[in-house]
Amino acid sequence: MSAASLDALVAALTCLPGVGRKSAQRMALHLLQHDRDGAERIVNSLRVALDQLQHCRQCRNFADDELCTICADPARDHATVCIVETPADVLAVEASGGYRGRYFVLLGKLSPLDGMGPEQIGLDQLEQQLDQGDIKEIILATGATVEGDITAQYIADLATRRDIAATRLARGIPLGGELEFVDSGTLSRALAARRPD
Amino acid sequence: MSAASLDALVAALTCLPGVGRKSAQRMALHLLQHDRDGAERIVNSLRVALDQLQHCRQCRNFADDELCTICADPARDHATVCIVETPADVLAVEASGGYRGRYFVLLGKLSPLDGMGPEQIGLDQLEQQLDQGDIKEIILATGATVEGDITAQYIADLATRRDIAATRLARGIPLGGELEFVDSGTLSRALAARRPD
Repeated sequence: MSAASLDALVAALTCLPGVGRKSAQRMALHLLQHDRDGAERIVNSLRVALDQLQHCRQCRNFADDELCTICADPARDHATVCIVETPADVLAVEASGGYRGRYFVLLGKLSPLDGMGPEQIGLDQLEQQLDQGDIKEIILATGATVEGDITAQYIADLATRRDIAATRLARGIPLGGELEFVDSGTLSRALAARRPD
Repeated sequence: MSAASLDALVAALTCLPGVGRKSAQRMALHLLQHDRDGAERIVNSLRVALDQLQHCRQCRNFADDELCTICADPARDHATVCIVETPADVLAVEASGGYRGRYFVLLGKLSPLDGMGPEQIGLDQLEQQLDQGDIKEIILATGATVEGDITAQYIADLATRRDIAATRLARGIPLGGELEFVDSGTLSRALAARRPD
């Protein structure tokens, strides 16, 4: 390319997920030619996020302070805890608009072969919180994968052992799903779990 | 979201071309959770590029120093100048592998209604270079658009007035193009410009 610092920038931008060399080039040239203010904002906000973001002491989500904004919000229902795998899952549940409880973020899922045991996903911390007696219900919202199901089952056991209600997200046909296009696994499970109308 | 600095980062990342809020979220969480080294590289290389990159004194492309690496390379043919609209076009011609001359980057195209006159696209600078007598041929590689064609015609006039050869990129059926799928404009032009085999 015409300048070494441009090459370095393009190479760095390929760290972004879903961005190959061609997109990185387009991004670098766009920022430098047409949006230098935007580039400054990216540098500054990324610097601040890298230096300042920590994990919430209570739920392990990203937080600016010791507690994230959700855990620090007295208007939320702190007796209900939704257990998810990643910070992105928190955003997804928040976007659904129907949840007013708090979260616990595993930052992973049980997968002993990859070295992910109960401690790596923070279950010692979760057990402490369950022992304190403030939590009335946990909602297991791990992914609908084999590891996600195993993780949910493991956590459900921790809860029932302490007489705390554990529920799972409903599984079935997605909203707007046409039977013809729903995958057979989802359909067979929806049939087996059919409910009176 | 769970932290104000994360919100700011997501908002900043939407400055990138083709990146909406959802992709920006995915990028921010990926960098913070899985690739902090990559995030550091982006911050540092973008900082360096913003502070250090300038326009080459000769060809107006991005450069670390007064001259870009292409203009500073004695192995290139400095008597042949390829005239393109943007730095991205330089990359495209370089990637084709078949060109050993140097470039002149207009950083735009003639478009009087948008305030882009000959001076805004550096034609005073180009005329000076043409006057020096070292340039034997200019290759007009502006886009195949109305403004691109007008710009090319204007520059061709500057060259022929000084007895400098001016050529245009060939237009026609693209490599691998099947007639059935070539647009009618391209096809009619390729027919009109047919050549003996």
